[in-house]
Amino acid sequence: MTSEATPPLVAGFRFAGVSAGIKKRGGPDVALIIANRVVACAGVFTTNLVVAAPVVQSRAALADASRARAVVVNSGNANACTGEVGVRDAAEMAARTAAALGCAERDIQVCSTGVIGAPLPMDKLRAGLDAALAAARPDGLPAFARAIMTTDTRPKVRFSQITLGGRTITAAGACKGAGMIHPNMATMLGFVVTDANVAEAELGAVWRRICGRTFNAISVDGDTSTNDTALCLASGEVGGAPLRGAELDALEALLERVAGDLARDIVRDAEGATKLVALTVRGAASEADARLAASTVATSPLVKTALHGEDPNWGRLVAAAGRSGARVDPARVAVSIGDVTIFSENRWHGPEAEKAANAIMKTPEFGIALDLGLGTHAHTVFTCDFSADYVRINADYRS
Amino acid sequence: MTSEATPPLVAGFRFAGVSAGIKKRGGPDVALIIANRVVACAGVFTTNLVVAAPVVQSRAALADASRARAVVVNSGNANACTGEVGVRDAAEMAARTAAALGCAERDIQVCSTGVIGAPLPMDKLRAGLDAALAAARPDGLPAFARAIMTTDTRPKVRFSQITLGGRTITAAGACKGAGMIHPNMATMLGFVVTDANVAEAELGAVWRRICGRTFNAISVDGDTSTNDTALCLASGEVGGAPLRGAELDALEALLERVAGDLARDIVRDAEGATKLVALTVRGAASEADARLAASTVATSPLVKTALHGEDPNWGRLVAAAGRSGARVDPARVAVSIGDVTIFSENRWHGPEAEKAANAIMKTPEFGIALDLGLGTHAHTVFTCDFSADYVRINADYRS
Repeated sequence: MTSEATPPLVAGFRFAGVSAGIKKRGGPDVALIIANRVVACAGVFTTNLVVAAPVVQSRAALADASRARAVVVNSGNANACTGEVGVRDAAEMAARTAAALGCAERDIQVCSTGVIGAPLPMDKLRAGLDAALAAARPDGLPAFARAIMTTDTRPKVRFSQITLGGRTITAAGACKGAGMIHPNMATMLGFVVTDANVAEAELGAVWRRICGRTFNAISVDGDTSTNDTALCLASGEVGGAPLRGAELDALEALLERVAGDLARDIVRDAEGATKLVALTVRGAASEADARLAASTVATSPLVKTALHGEDPNWGRLVAAAGRSGARVDPARVAVSIGDVTIFSENRWHGPEAEKAANAIMKTPEFGIALDLGLGTHAHTVFTCDFSADYVRINADYRS
Repeated sequence: MTSEATPPLVAGFRFAGVSAGIKKRGGPDVALIIANRVVACAGVFTTNLVVAAPVVQSRAALADASRARAVVVNSGNANACTGEVGVRDAAEMAARTAAALGCAERDIQVCSTGVIGAPLPMDKLRAGLDAALAAARPDGLPAFARAIMTTDTRPKVRFSQITLGGRTITAAGACKGAGMIHPNMATMLGFVVTDANVAEAELGAVWRRICGRTFNAISVDGDTSTNDTALCLASGEVGGAPLRGAELDALEALLERVAGDLARDIVRDAEGATKLVALTVRGAASEADARLAASTVATSPLVKTALHGEDPNWGRLVAAAGRSGARVDPARVAVSIGDVTIFSENRWHGPEAEKAANAIMKTPEFGIALDLGLGTHAHTVFTCDFSADYVRINADYRS
């Protein structure tokens, strides 16, 4: 379902987004997801060794128990590189929310995104948090989505439904993408909630797999933030026994549709980007090779500037795969843009193929495939082009 | 010595650069280095698994014996992704040069740079090679430097001299840098010749170390070409016994001065670049960590756009180190720009430090250091900024 449509309610959850004055330019900046009770929660966090205080706090809470009662988010300040003060502030965000809801501090997930290196303005945050606690409503997801934005040009909300055993299961979510202007972290935050009944351990495994194919399979510029977080909460309010087997697989597909739509929304809204490209490496000798080659090609500045120029530059694609560290034999590589094969068996397919590929590249969304011809493993990364606007946006001095 | 000065002769070598009509826009495009006899030669080649035919040819020749009589280079066509025809053409370039000089085919090094995927125009190349063989002169290095250029805006020649045991030893060289416009390989070619007397095995070890600190320590955009080659030839014409011990160390320093100057010239001339930045990671727990962190920071688009914006954005520097895979403890990291420490002990040093760092970043060449505080290992990468011009140049459609 598109970002523009009104999302359905997800039984067991309320949402809020309020303005607390943390963002210098104003606008909503404190957001909240509240479950009616402590529910199953799975989290995937940044792999950056430089992690923000809220990530340290939230990761530890989830390690303790795969459950949560609420998620509190502020935008406008990342609470990163803020030392001991930052650790205390993140803990206070959790403690204050827990006290209001009557649950344990470890049942609160905390996220921050925005300026780094500056301490959180805690007076504003406390007031904003109290207002959000009072404002939370079942239909508050769009308000939540607006309050987590930084340099996103539009809020990102997605949802989907399936019917299992006569019960309609709903999943809905919101995310914010790689906005880096002022000043500068490409933080990705993603949240999906569902009313499905699923065991905590199952939800964790499902969510890790989904993130590998969605939020962790997008690339704007290859930089990983100190604050990246993707959370999934399942209230179980739809009832029935915890999902297993084929029904659990169906839930995974449902959650992946929502997470995938949200992840692609981030790339569509990437700074300066004009193209959404599904970059697939297939025929790889191993799963790791497929990921390595796809991610290297998808982040190559030479490839990304060629995408911007609508240039079917198979030489840059093959060369990027060649330096990726994955096993590559150039004589076996085939390159297609959309359904046009432009290079295979060490041979360029000529000006006609190039012209057809160029026509496909003039559209805003298309696929590129590199078949390595060495095995059966595949991986897709969603990437975008590098535009002169990207440089302008990110070269802006912060003052 | 600067690129502008006339280089001294290097005893034992002649050079040529002639126009053969391979480059579509005209200009010299066949270049030659000829030694008076077969001499010691060391080579470092691209690590890309997709390698051009001339690299396959030259690497095999040097594996056979660390010697060469001549180096033949063409610009305008990379002879890459050209299949069996390309392999035959590269072999013919070596064979024709060897026949003219009366040496073995394996004593000829072959390099190509330019358009990929198109076969070499061998008629033009044969005529150009014959003309270059006739034109080679001891003072031909500047002509050689012009004939290896692709999208470089200026030729790159560097030299230096030392006196060892009463003998003046000369080293001089030329290189061409990362030009990718038409159509598209960031090929780096570097050549240094010296009249020093040095054993083949010693030269190989010395050259590999030097390339690690010079040609392999520069980054324009993180892409590695299919054709990158750095060669060093030593004629021994200066006489005396093969250099050993402290004298060999002095030769290494001499060659490194020339190779380092050439490598930095490539970054200075990088497409769209306005800054040359020496990015040093020190205090790393291992040599590998120092290289990994320095190279990740130096290639980060967020860092490179901040360099363009003269923005002392320590958050991006620390975050890039954090995701590099190197051991990083944010509490121990210190960041300096020039001699200004802007972040240390988890603390931003405030607006005064930021202002001073910004002033340094307004100059065209400066240093940035990240001290990881975990050990004694260091590595420096020379990098440049990402400008909107870079995007424009590389997005240009090839037609």
